[in-house]
Amino acid sequence: MTINERIKELRALMKENNIDVYFVPSADNHQSEYTGSYFCTRAFITGFTGSAGTAIITQTDAGLWTDGRYFIQAEAQLKDSEIKLYKMGNPGVPTVNEYLEQVLTPGSTLGFDGRVVSMSEGIHFANKFSGKNIKIQDKLDLIDSIWKDRPPMSEAPVFLLEEKYSGESTASKLERVRNFMKENGSSVHLLITLDDIAWLLNLRGRDVMFTPVFLAYAAVTMEQVHLFINESKISSEIKTVLDNDGIVLHPYNDVYSFTENLAASEVVLLDSTRLNFALYNRIPQAVKVVDKMNPSVLYKAMKNEIEAENIRKAHVKDAVAHTKFMYWIKNNYDKEVITELSASAKLESLRAEQENFLWPSFGAISAFGAHAAMCHYSSSEETNCQLMPGTFYLSDTGGNYWEGSTDITRTVALGEVSSELKMHFTNVLRGNLALANAKFLYGCTGQNLDILARQYLWNANLDYNHGTGHGVGYLLSIHEAPCRIRWQQGFETIPLSHGMVLSNEPGIYIENSHGIRLENELLVRKAAKNEYGQFMEFEVITYVPFDLDAIEPTLMRDDEKELLNNYHKLVFDTVSPYLTSEETEWLKQYTRAI
Amino acid sequence: MTINERIKELRALMKENNIDVYFVPSADNHQSEYTGSYFCTRAFITGFTGSAGTAIITQTDAGLWTDGRYFIQAEAQLKDSEIKLYKMGNPGVPTVNEYLEQVLTPGSTLGFDGRVVSMSEGIHFANKFSGKNIKIQDKLDLIDSIWKDRPPMSEAPVFLLEEKYSGESTASKLERVRNFMKENGSSVHLLITLDDIAWLLNLRGRDVMFTPVFLAYAAVTMEQVHLFINESKISSEIKTVLDNDGIVLHPYNDVYSFTENLAASEVVLLDSTRLNFALYNRIPQAVKVVDKMNPSVLYKAMKNEIEAENIRKAHVKDAVAHTKFMYWIKNNYDKEVITELSASAKLESLRAEQENFLWPSFGAISAFGAHAAMCHYSSSEETNCQLMPGTFYLSDTGGNYWEGSTDITRTVALGEVSSELKMHFTNVLRGNLALANAKFLYGCTGQNLDILARQYLWNANLDYNHGTGHGVGYLLSIHEAPCRIRWQQGFETIPLSHGMVLSNEPGIYIENSHGIRLENELLVRKAAKNEYGQFMEFEVITYVPFDLDAIEPTLMRDDEKELLNNYHKLVFDTVSPYLTSEETEWLKQYTRAI
Repeated sequence: MTINERIKELRALMKENNIDVYFVPSADNHQSEYTGSYFCTRAFITGFTGSAGTAIITQTDAGLWTDGRYFIQAEAQLKDSEIKLYKMGNPGVPTVNEYLEQVLTPGSTLGFDGRVVSMSEGIHFANKFSGKNIKIQDKLDLIDSIWKDRPPMSEAPVFLLEEKYSGESTASKLERVRNFMKENGSSVHLLITLDDIAWLLNLRGRDVMFTPVFLAYAAVTMEQVHLFINESKISSEIKTVLDNDGIVLHPYNDVYSFTENLAASEVVLLDSTRLNFALYNRIPQAVKVVDKMNPSVLYKAMKNEIEAENIRKAHVKDAVAHTKFMYWIKNNYDKEVITELSASAKLESLRAEQENFLWPSFGAISAFGAHAAMCHYSSSEETNCQLMPGTFYLSDTGGNYWEGSTDITRTVALGEVSSELKMHFTNVLRGNLALANAKFLYGCTGQNLDILARQYLWNANLDYNHGTGHGVGYLLSIHEAPCRIRWQQGFETIPLSHGMVLSNEPGIYIENSHGIRLENELLVRKAAKNEYGQFMEFEVITYVPFDLDAIEPTLMRDDEKELLNNYHKLVFDTVSPYLTSEETEWLKQYTRAI
Repeated sequence: MTINERIKELRALMKENNIDVYFVPSADNHQSEYTGSYFCTRAFITGFTGSAGTAIITQTDAGLWTDGRYFIQAEAQLKDSEIKLYKMGNPGVPTVNEYLEQVLTPGSTLGFDGRVVSMSEGIHFANKFSGKNIKIQDKLDLIDSIWKDRPPMSEAPVFLLEEKYSGESTASKLERVRNFMKENGSSVHLLITLDDIAWLLNLRGRDVMFTPVFLAYAAVTMEQVHLFINESKISSEIKTVLDNDGIVLHPYNDVYSFTENLAASEVVLLDSTRLNFALYNRIPQAVKVVDKMNPSVLYKAMKNEIEAENIRKAHVKDAVAHTKFMYWIKNNYDKEVITELSASAKLESLRAEQENFLWPSFGAISAFGAHAAMCHYSSSEETNCQLMPGTFYLSDTGGNYWEGSTDITRTVALGEVSSELKMHFTNVLRGNLALANAKFLYGCTGQNLDILARQYLWNANLDYNHGTGHGVGYLLSIHEAPCRIRWQQGFETIPLSHGMVLSNEPGIYIENSHGIRLENELLVRKAAKNEYGQFMEFEVITYVPFDLDAIEPTLMRDDEKELLNNYHKLVFDTVSPYLTSEETEWLKQYTRAI
């Protein structure tokens, strides 16, 4: 069936259901960052397979909205269909909201599947269109009837995360959540975000690419946890564990009827930025709602001491694999054919040799030369190319281990590179070092610190168009809320707190030339406490050298060289015990003091 | 009449008026930072004369709330009265709001003069007590009947600020405000903040200590400006000017009846953080309200090019006076008796010698040794002391000139000081230099930049408990909204924009020992614009040396020494033409490269 045929069928269904405008976002029922193939309805109806995009279909028009990362790909994938590409951010291009306002005339009806729309977006629609005689029909997954060979939802089994890894029992976590519920006068806590549920129950799964979570909804009460999940995923062993914690199983979709039947006396704790619109709409009018950030968001962001110690171990293993990779690539790229894809495979195989490695924590970025200037480049058979001397190779990769998830970016020089490339590399490195060595008072957020990473680029009228850092989950989301390092406003602003893990990844991207990103992970620690308050600092937990071949030492101050030399000494001491003698010799050379 | 007698009279009036709890804040009708003596009702009823404090009186209790700056002074001033001191911020001390919740039992009435309570605080009270059968009576200035010799409101004449100083006509300013009103669908703009009114009308006055403003309210419509002011302040010359701009005069207090009589079709633009509760309450229920930051707040913060050029001139004059002062003090403190008060008088007299000097822009801080550890120290006959060798002297002062207002702090070493003092001084200076030389993308606020000023102190587990910078008005408020440099959240966050003037004043305060603050003013300028955005930078517009006797050069990096040397070269080149040959020789020595 061609895309145009699919759209034709959709339009017939829209007519049947009195829908004038049908809206298809890129989401699953759980507001996940990565989604399973079952949820790729937008890709099915448009043919565009990029991770971010929104489709809107009317009887006369069909449009796809996506951002600059995907313009080229979307153009190619849409060219044989009637779908018009709306290049988000380009001058004169209406936003999704502006377009909806144009096409939704009084008396018309907007339709969508409310499970894949966030509560806040749904409410935004409802508020916007309420006074204009525009109806919203949010219970229609029209794509489902057209998509004959729709992949089933994942049936992967759930597995336990033992307390030696999680550092805290489910009972203890539930107690904390219930105390928070009491403090906020609530009796039921609705939770649909998969990482919150996995953290709370010390369970993991494999229903989503990379992120070790499982499809489920939860409703926490003072006595029980109602877990809505396909029961075939739960082994009898796990069932016993859950029983002991008062966790009751229900079919996956029953969360909607459960919510509809909440007694009027209940008070529901929910997070409007992390609930879907459909579930919100099922809450009876009489039930009071308390809208707060899910308490587990903050609890899981602040890793306990057992998790922290595990994460350090994961990073040592990751560093061994990555150092071997750097040694291999720098010594062999000019002796054998190494491509972006083969390099990426090599790094994954080195990680796989490490104990307790599970699978990659996200899709690898393996980018040579100008490819690295595209921040979110993903190499494919079409774009794959051989590594050659005279420029940089960038790899942004990570692993899921039982001891936690890693995320690291290194950029290495292949042969001699130009002084401009070295200047860019050195200034990115200086920013990375400045941020990693910051000391600050408790209460600071990433907003306060971001400038430390950018200052040397900004001084040279340069910048990178992405955040400096994101939170990292423990065998969970590689981009974990709520902490981040960004200078812009408009994000959740949570103080950087003891136990949080964040990335530190300044970069620079020169179109058609080169891209640089240097990413370590930081563990937030308490430092001195005195009359001024609680001081905080970072522990760097990534142990991989920054390529000295790419550095121009004359651009670094003495104090910066000292920071780099100290870091490189830590790298050598940490990693060398696990290397061959050749690799050790190489590492000694590449961690020498400058 | 003793304080206790005043309170007794107040209680009788409270009974007469059925008031159970009477609330007296420290404010005028215009939410001003500094107030005229007419408005010192809280000082009258308590005897406490500090600038910040709140009194609450019931039939059985009388309390005063003030902050750490004033504990000692308040204790002394309250000791002969029945008033209890509530030390704000101390453990176990209820806040004003907590106390009100305790004493306001169901059925009781809270009374105050709504003109001296902000709209947002009044609404906060109303919301908090509405469900609890507690009444609010906001039209009672009970102090007025007790205060027999209450000073009259200031009758000082209003004067014109010519366009060669303001850089923009009233007509042009009104056009901008009216365009903003149109964009926000409003027909009347209520304005009570004195600096907004003075800026808009290119008028100044002297009704408030230091700040060159006049008591008035304004209501801007599309055709007219209704100016509510005591007409005796307006000369016939100014009256003609006002007529030409469509400005209609009304008696000062008529703004309340004017507001009561607004037609239901009007839409009022107001700023809930900058209106008083009484005026808000007079707006008829049927009138729609648009709550936005007064547009003039941002307009006046962004100085135009004529204002900027004037401000530079004011700072040159200020620097001449201040450099002469430094020369004098460092050469004479050990030859003659110089005290905090005489030093302060000397500096004021040197400023007064400058052309177009009007009066000080705020109350001088002149603090020797340990006195400087109190951030807001104000020397008096009781505390005044002689300047002696071996420690620091700090002066934080400023002037109002026709060309703008200045604010500068210098700390100077008297004789040889200890290495600890030099270390503190040097790290404060390094922070000042780092902030002044920041480059950043447009969109950054002071929150993003504050860490640059604090980083060297934070690295040493030190801090200063005040903001790094505040906006500075043009012959208006010395602390001007909305821009500021603070790391904490919870303030208006406005991007630092071309034309804004901010202070840069890191410090350090060691109780019973010494205090250091180094304050320059910064003018925000556009720098390069490219594919990354609009870069911004600061122009330092204070031209006074940092005392080289207080610096430990070995603590400074080479790049920091270069910044200091460049600044000192600018200081010498700017100021030396206006000095005597002895002063010039001295300045050459004190601006030498290190």
